[in-house]
Amino acid sequence: MLPRAYDGQICSIARTLETVGDRWTLLLMRDALRGVRRFEDFRTRLGIAHNVLSDRLARLTQAGILQRQLYQTRPNRYEYAPTEQGLDLWPVIMSLLLYGDRYLAPDGPPLLATHRGCAGQLTARFTCDSCHASLGPADVELVEGPGASSD
Amino acid sequence: MLPRAYDGQICSIARTLETVGDRWTLLLMRDALRGVRRFEDFRTRLGIAHNVLSDRLARLTQAGILQRQLYQTRPNRYEYAPTEQGLDLWPVIMSLLLYGDRYLAPDGPPLLATHRGCAGQLTARFTCDSCHASLGPADVELVEGPGASSD
Repeated sequence: MLPRAYDGQICSIARTLETVGDRWTLLLMRDALRGVRRFEDFRTRLGIAHNVLSDRLARLTQAGILQRQLYQTRPNRYEYAPTEQGLDLWPVIMSLLLYGDRYLAPDGPPLLATHRGCAGQLTARFTCDSCHASLGPADVELVEGPGASSD
Repeated sequence: MLPRAYDGQICSIARTLETVGDRWTLLLMRDALRGVRRFEDFRTRLGIAHNVLSDRLARLTQAGILQRQLYQTRPNRYEYAPTEQGLDLWPVIMSLLLYGDRYLAPDGPPLLATHRGCAGQLTARFTCDSCHASLGPADVELVEGPGASSD
């Protein structure tokens, strides 16, 4: 959807950044995943220009991350709801949140990611799908996969 | 380090994107977390301009994400290694990878995040630090934290 930003990078990280890594898109998805649905609500919360928001909503809809739903006729008005693919951006967004809370929140987290009805806090864990061990950077190697020479 | 990109956003997601969300920075950190250390190696892998790479390395060093280490004198040459704070970007980068592998890799993942010595694949799991339940988007609410009115 965005122009190729990283020529020669056959990489899922680069591709994801090309899709959602531009300014505002991940914040827009943050709000969509909190239940924001309507143009004016996105605009008020994000404080961005009308045309930029229109563009981002259109791109995300085209990419299959949001879906447009008619909620009013005369004039037609649409809501934007995350698709299943959009919901799968949640780990990306929560990882950004947890990093920022740890290193960029001198007064404490602005928002607490709280388990509804329990009040525990969200934590991220990476595990091995085979032996179920907890994994960190030193435990994982990136090896060529089936898509290594595509593009 | 970057100019404030999201005025009025008191949000750890926005702050993290301000620090690392610009073009190239997360790909540079991807390579640093794979063991790349030297200027020329970053440059060759990323295929970016000399001055852009210099700028990104300086910013990441200033932000405490990379640390510069002298590895040769006459002339002085430096390596760039992730700090502990830099290692904590790993969940962000792996979340981007797993999303891209799922939705943006029609020929299969270019790189497989493999458990060293086991060959299992990396998976991400979000849990509650209190009751240890697995959490998804519907289970978590973002509520105001201690830093909500700062900035």
